Amino acid sequence: MHVTFEDIERAEELMRDRVLRTPCFPAARLSELTGANVVLKLENLQHTGAFKVRGALIKLLSLNESERQAGVIAASAGNHAQGVGYFSRQLGIPATIVMPTNTPFTKIARTEALGAKVVLQGDDFIQARDHAIVLAEAEGYTFVHPYDDEKVIAGQGCIGLEMLQDQPQLDSIIASIGGGGLISGVAIAAKHLKPGVEVFGVQADTYPSMFDAYYKTHTNAPYGQTIADGIAVKTPSPNTQAIIEKVVDGIFKVSELDIEQALLTFMDLKRIIAEGAGAAPLAALLANREKFQGRTVGLVVSGGNIDSRMLSSILMRGLAREGKLVSLRIKLPDMPLALSVVSKIIGDSGANIIEIHHQRLFSDVALKETEIDVAVETLDRRHVENLVNVLNREGFETRILSGTPD
Amino acid sequence: MHVTFEDIERAEELMRDRVLRTPCFPAARLSELTGANVVLKLENLQHTGAFKVRGALIKLLSLNESERQAGVIAASAGNHAQGVGYFSRQLGIPATIVMPTNTPFTKIARTEALGAKVVLQGDDFIQARDHAIVLAEAEGYTFVHPYDDEKVIAGQGCIGLEMLQDQPQLDSIIASIGGGGLISGVAIAAKHLKPGVEVFGVQADTYPSMFDAYYKTHTNAPYGQTIADGIAVKTPSPNTQAIIEKVVDGIFKVSELDIEQALLTFMDLKRIIAEGAGAAPLAALLANREKFQGRTVGLVVSGGNIDSRMLSSILMRGLAREGKLVSLRIKLPDMPLALSVVSKIIGDSGANIIEIHHQRLFSDVALKETEIDVAVETLDRRHVENLVNVLNREGFETRILSGTPD
Repeated sequence: MHVTFEDIERAEELMRDRVLRTPCFPAARLSELTGANVVLKLENLQHTGAFKVRGALIKLLSLNESERQAGVIAASAGNHAQGVGYFSRQLGIPATIVMPTNTPFTKIARTEALGAKVVLQGDDFIQARDHAIVLAEAEGYTFVHPYDDEKVIAGQGCIGLEMLQDQPQLDSIIASIGGGGLISGVAIAAKHLKPGVEVFGVQADTYPSMFDAYYKTHTNAPYGQTIADGIAVKTPSPNTQAIIEKVVDGIFKVSELDIEQALLTFMDLKRIIAEGAGAAPLAALLANREKFQGRTVGLVVSGGNIDSRMLSSILMRGLAREGKLVSLRIKLPDMPLALSVVSKIIGDSGANIIEIHHQRLFSDVALKETEIDVAVETLDRRHVENLVNVLNREGFETRILSGTPD
Repeated sequence: MHVTFEDIERAEELMRDRVLRTPCFPAARLSELTGANVVLKLENLQHTGAFKVRGALIKLLSLNESERQAGVIAASAGNHAQGVGYFSRQLGIPATIVMPTNTPFTKIARTEALGAKVVLQGDDFIQARDHAIVLAEAEGYTFVHPYDDEKVIAGQGCIGLEMLQDQPQLDSIIASIGGGGLISGVAIAAKHLKPGVEVFGVQADTYPSMFDAYYKTHTNAPYGQTIADGIAVKTPSPNTQAIIEKVVDGIFKVSELDIEQALLTFMDLKRIIAEGAGAAPLAALLANREKFQGRTVGLVVSGGNIDSRMLSSILMRGLAREGKLVSLRIKLPDMPLALSVVSKIIGDSGANIIEIHHQRLFSDVALKETEIDVAVETLDRRHVENLVNVLNREGFETRILSGTPD
């Protein structure tokens, strides 16, 4: 597999007016926070909310007339499905997308809304992909691989080209790695335009497949749920691996909590919504601040497609971690005024009660006592500590329950 | 008060490299949704998360040396405070910000973090402002008005200039109106560059002060809480009113629910966080689709500073409205297997139970019955209806509780 800068330049010409040239600009508060000069490339603002449309478009444009008429097929429940669906419709190419049978309804609906036919098959992505390859063979569809394809890599590479054109002062670029298509293209383009620029990858430490391939290590990875589902790839492609070994300067691993914190930081300091994979580069920068002190670092925010429910619970967990929302379990003597006294102590401290649960039937305390769980809004951790101290001092034994009041 | 295009041009030169030239680009899915060609101007990505830094900078740069040394004062707990604080620090000008005494701790902390001195005084914004004017007089500070100032208006006007430079095909621009500084500047710049462009304002229908002044109407406005606190201004300035009457083509009013829905739409379709005032232009477009069919409409997303707690609850309310999260109150015969049967019915329907509350002590049903409140994740409204029908048919009287399971 061979992708050149000229391939990427041609791709860039092809995608003008079809793909959004996403903004790429410095972020002052993130720079203050990290000590680096942070530049963001906002592919979460891209059509369909992720960079995947770029590679999909270049692949679709490369098909000849009979291939177009026969149609294309892809396996994905996420951004790749959206990318292929989005441009298939625009180009009038019939598209079939295979998703695992357990795919959430909203993801199916979103892809069908783009005009693609959705086939549900298999327990996981591997089985769906295998079925897509079988269907491609049987029906004469062209299989559009999410990353293991020269056209796709050239398409994603336009991101690197745009970044160096818009912000030539970049010293480093950090991009997440799932299959490796994005970073392969970005690194080829960036290093051609500025040979001294460093390009780093990031993986979720639950899915460190390319990390292991790159460093010849073996991590006993859990391969479980990850907030960065967009880069949850178990097996690296030998093709992208070969490119990455040549043009990428290092790969970081980041934890789930780091990614979640980066996602919150993007919302808090930059008012943007990144999905897990899109927040991973900021997580890597936050975890490796010393390395990037004073350097101009471009972060590829690859996508923003995250479920509202997850977003909401991440916000709540963030508030809980900052001590702005806390759940307290308080022992009360079972007598009329106890609740009123406790409420007054909480109110006087400046905290705001938002929820109370009574634990009467199942509490393990003495018969003449009862327990309440109170969710309160607080200012910060110190405020929480002070409140707990006052409650204990006044005879109401109190402990902090972990997590949010849910 | 007289602001010319040349004032705005000069402001634009002064703010280069100091203020972010925020992205201004078409939004495909919002265009599909509204039938207009939607262009976004993302001032929520601006330093401090709102456009207010622009006017503050131009005002601060206009001070002479002795005024700079004496320092500035402003009254605001929001974006104006941040704007004045941000550039005062950069320019080495001492800044004092007066906020009402009930200002949330986080807003105080955020302004202090910029190096400004915060004075808490007064029960509301008017009292805080009056105190700021007294302090300005006593201490020789320059009072920086949030909108009633030629320099401030010239600064905000750069947004209109940038929009027409970047997207000259714009037919219309919609911007929110609080005091009217933003829209005054935007309209002066836009109409100079393209006399045919239409400029519309938006106000929250809870604070329709400029609307009433413009249309010579009188709305019995509640002046209560609004999600668009950035434009909650009770009394219009005669100066901005005079400009607006000359250069603005109309003003829309939008409801709280419309603004909330627009805010969700921005998150859902464009992965950006807008504050209430920043989402109001989209709310106006959504409420007036026919008027803008096929037109190219620029929406000024003026800011993104919204509290995480509010954001989280807006997300949850959104899910509830879409039928993706519902709270059901179900009557159960008080017998061992009832809960198990109900859980199975819910699970079999594909819904996911996330919370159960037992209503035993206080329910008003017969002694041998009990009630449970169940929060479930569902696919959509039809799914909810089907589930409720099945439960009723199986003998478990069920009704939908309004709102989220909180």
